[in-house]
Amino acid sequence: MSIDRNNEIEVKNEVERQFNILSRGCDEIINENEFKKKLEKSISTNTPLRIKLGIDPTGSELHLGHAVPLRKLKQFQDLGHEVLFLIGTFTGRIGDPTGKSETRKMLSEEQVNENIKTYLDQVKLILDLDKIKVVYNADWLEKLSLSDALNLLSQFTVSQMISREDFSKRLAENKPVSLIEFMYPILQGYDSVELKADVELGATEQKFNLLRGRDLQKNFGQEQQVCMIMPILVGLDGVEKMSKSLGNYIGVKDTPNDMFGKVMSISDELMENYYTMITDVPFGKIEEIKAQIADGSLHPMEAKKQLGAEVVKIYYGEEAAKEARDWFENVFSKRNLDVDLPEVEVPYGQINVIDLLVKEAKLLGGTSEARRLISQGGFKINDEAIKDIKANVNVESGMIIRAGKKKIVKVK
Amino acid sequence: MSIDRNNEIEVKNEVERQFNILSRGCDEIINENEFKKKLEKSISTNTPLRIKLGIDPTGSELHLGHAVPLRKLKQFQDLGHEVLFLIGTFTGRIGDPTGKSETRKMLSEEQVNENIKTYLDQVKLILDLDKIKVVYNADWLEKLSLSDALNLLSQFTVSQMISREDFSKRLAENKPVSLIEFMYPILQGYDSVELKADVELGATEQKFNLLRGRDLQKNFGQEQQVCMIMPILVGLDGVEKMSKSLGNYIGVKDTPNDMFGKVMSISDELMENYYTMITDVPFGKIEEIKAQIADGSLHPMEAKKQLGAEVVKIYYGEEAAKEARDWFENVFSKRNLDVDLPEVEVPYGQINVIDLLVKEAKLLGGTSEARRLISQGGFKINDEAIKDIKANVNVESGMIIRAGKKKIVKVK
Repeated sequence: MSIDRNNEIEVKNEVERQFNILSRGCDEIINENEFKKKLEKSISTNTPLRIKLGIDPTGSELHLGHAVPLRKLKQFQDLGHEVLFLIGTFTGRIGDPTGKSETRKMLSEEQVNENIKTYLDQVKLILDLDKIKVVYNADWLEKLSLSDALNLLSQFTVSQMISREDFSKRLAENKPVSLIEFMYPILQGYDSVELKADVELGATEQKFNLLRGRDLQKNFGQEQQVCMIMPILVGLDGVEKMSKSLGNYIGVKDTPNDMFGKVMSISDELMENYYTMITDVPFGKIEEIKAQIADGSLHPMEAKKQLGAEVVKIYYGEEAAKEARDWFENVFSKRNLDVDLPEVEVPYGQINVIDLLVKEAKLLGGTSEARRLISQGGFKINDEAIKDIKANVNVESGMIIRAGKKKIVKVK
Repeated sequence: MSIDRNNEIEVKNEVERQFNILSRGCDEIINENEFKKKLEKSISTNTPLRIKLGIDPTGSELHLGHAVPLRKLKQFQDLGHEVLFLIGTFTGRIGDPTGKSETRKMLSEEQVNENIKTYLDQVKLILDLDKIKVVYNADWLEKLSLSDALNLLSQFTVSQMISREDFSKRLAENKPVSLIEFMYPILQGYDSVELKADVELGATEQKFNLLRGRDLQKNFGQEQQVCMIMPILVGLDGVEKMSKSLGNYIGVKDTPNDMFGKVMSISDELMENYYTMITDVPFGKIEEIKAQIADGSLHPMEAKKQLGAEVVKIYYGEEAAKEARDWFENVFSKRNLDVDLPEVEVPYGQINVIDLLVKEAKLLGGTSEARRLISQGGFKINDEAIKDIKANVNVESGMIIRAGKKKIVKVK
């Protein structure tokens, strides 16, 4: 981007341009004025802003909920800013209880190291690892002394900490809050001091912690960081937060067909949210799609397929997106089974339908789930529904088993 | 003390003897059984117990309230136990808010060092400094890291800390409680781990902190210390805690005459408490004195004079105690002024009575106090009361000025 840094109007336009791109999908920016000033300074002095995102090396499988801030980082990166990808090698051992109702267990150093590897392996699907600066907070936090800790503690009051929603909730419920948990937001804030961060990204549940960075930077005589608060991505069910444990997620390592199929399973109501939060489709285009659906010129199913393709495109490219759409249409829309289907190995011969679904083909997690699906007619052998939970079927090679609308396998 | 360590009965008797001496004047011992067991082990293995008393190097003038635990240490010392006199060179910089309604200011290292010198200079009036081990907690706490701090923090919950009375009170009043204050009881507890303390002494307001030592010792795999909770000494007024700022104190560096005079100013009701807490008079003797006062065979004034002499004896010896009593009787009881009186330098000539009392002779702290004393007839020149606050007197050498019952000076 070549602009005349001495031309006020060009700078102002560039500030607006960057602001519009970067504020997309944000819940809150604390605060917008400071952010614009930082952008202006950055553009007019040709100095990249320092953008911090901290993660705890805890979980191992990234889903599109995690991808929301990572893709925001990508936008900063594409605009020439410096991305500081902070891995909480020190704080990860404490664990932040945000949004959790219990004190978290400490992680061992070995677990942390293994998790980082798995994590970065997935992050590189979104960000160019060579262009970001990966930093580890153990590098500076391990050097702090008890005196340093006391100095940090002295800058906050008990009431201030207790005001954090999950703390006050647990205290009100007489659930234990360990004193160590108070240190988490403080150390997260201190990381911003150490990194001289200009902007920190985080989900809404991180707001309290992000603001502590502002507190500490001020006390340490630094310019305060801008807090960019991202909404939490809702899961495929449209109700709960996207999470691995709830099973309502799209993993960044899911196959193109799985990604596409999972997008197709969401409700029509969730589409706009997903278009905004997990794709790069411009706002104008999203409005257009909405209008077309409203006036009947675009079928919601088609809009959803386009959404699915957009998502696959981000992680696997345009060609894979097209193939995933074709596969889906063949299998589910045209019911054309003359395509590659996932194969399962199941012993040939007579078997009870529930055992087949749960124990052998492993399409469902439990007996009660299987019983419900079968009674509702969702279980099909070669496109024929079997509704009797006591029925036996004769398994043979090439047999096609369906469990609900989105699960289909072929016996090897 | 030579006892047969293998003779169960002798050991048992010695345990009882030591327990009786040491439990004198204690508010609470947590717990008595453990204490007896520790004494038994100490006696039967000929291993002294490790007795901890921690002080913050904050104030500079010791009074008999401070002397209560110091004299308890003396008893332990006399019984052959090891006294660990802990000076909170590290924790003193934080300041413990116990009993205070506000966060305390941190002390500088210079202040701390100066205070220690003044403090030990007074402590040696009670304890033999050569026989005690003076330890400084900066020696180990300065070496702790942030990780160590987190490990300590993880062993306590927020609710546990908030339960401390002064914290909960301040929180309820919306007064700030700094997070650093939570560290004080924890570090005090950790000191016990470091010192492997068998017993820790402290006043009632210290109970919460002393118990944290038990928590941490247990978590660190040590035998838990016994907490010996001492009552807080009431001041000369019989109402408030003895303290320098309230002026209701007897300083350990007060002159024998001042000590004696101050004891004589207490109410008859306070006598028993003082006999128990600030003298070594055996319980049996105290009971005898009470009985004699009750049956009229001992005048309370005489009992109080004996109390005064006992107190002076502790700090200055028997001879000085006798002299102080003589002085007091001469000046106040026999009104014999033909003794050495404290002398003041006051310019000769006419002066207003209030100015004389407050500004020149400096017998009273303020004008309103002087006005009240004069109106009540407590101000006398050469034994003649002057009740007019506007009166002038003609100051000359040898003139005797009284301000109330206990203050008397002679103009030089």
